[in-house]
Amino acid sequence: MDVQTKKTALRMFTYGVYLLGMKQDTTYNASTVSWVSQVSFEPPLVMVALRNDSLTLGMVLAAKGFTINLLDSRQMEMAGKFFKQATYQDGKLNGHAFEPGAQTGAPVFVDAPAWLECKVVETLGRGDHTVVIAEVVEAGVRDERATPLVLRDTPWQYGG
Amino acid sequence: MDVQTKKTALRMFTYGVYLLGMKQDTTYNASTVSWVSQVSFEPPLVMVALRNDSLTLGMVLAAKGFTINLLDSRQMEMAGKFFKQATYQDGKLNGHAFEPGAQTGAPVFVDAPAWLECKVVETLGRGDHTVVIAEVVEAGVRDERATPLVLRDTPWQYGG
Repeated sequence: MDVQTKKTALRMFTYGVYLLGMKQDTTYNASTVSWVSQVSFEPPLVMVALRNDSLTLGMVLAAKGFTINLLDSRQMEMAGKFFKQATYQDGKLNGHAFEPGAQTGAPVFVDAPAWLECKVVETLGRGDHTVVIAEVVEAGVRDERATPLVLRDTPWQYGG
Repeated sequence: MDVQTKKTALRMFTYGVYLLGMKQDTTYNASTVSWVSQVSFEPPLVMVALRNDSLTLGMVLAAKGFTINLLDSRQMEMAGKFFKQATYQDGKLNGHAFEPGAQTGAPVFVDAPAWLECKVVETLGRGDHTVVIAEVVEAGVRDERATPLVLRDTPWQYGG
């Protein structure tokens, strides 16, 4: 297998861009993620693959829950702020207001057009990321007609 | 949780549209799939979630391998032909020419702008789909500048 060809092919795959919200003890955080997919209708399950060495994975495993905030195509700048650990100040994360999720306390951003609150049911570590499978336990939609932010429409890549 | 809100939120998530190619014994098949994501860089792993009661899952588990054919935005009609079991005739599947993948024998469509050949490394069944984790063992790119087919740009939905 040609490694560059493999990388090129994998980077052509389609992903959204989401903010994963976490709360561990009294610490709030959020992180930009792309490797996200639904994996069951009943029960409603999603998966997110998180880097093994990331703070995000550690917080998600400790808290056993998280939120997924879907972003609008006009919220790329917001997504770009959450590549590293977020700063909590004045009740906001990196300047963005949120509410605590009812079941996990994890951040639900008030400007996200849609969001899910999820509880971890299983994890699977085979490579440099851990596949976290979680059940959707709460959901909200603020703007059903939003055009979701898609990784391809950003300057960023995550894949290869 | 409001079930309709949950469904609406999950349907706003972003997916590509791919043709999963399979060969079990002497039988070729291909199936339209969307719940696909990379889940590790090193080793290069992907996941695809397949309905537990599907022929596709049975063939993938028996063959322990498959291909993922990325489609161009102009290939929606081709994708639409593979919602049910494909017809093999004159060396083609539903009229589309393919070559057998070098490592799995699974169909690599000659018109796909990019493709992966994958070997199953682990499966995880928690809901009505099975999460199949597979290692990318071969890859090809025929048109790096293709605009990939995205589920949102089709009349179809798979999620909720």
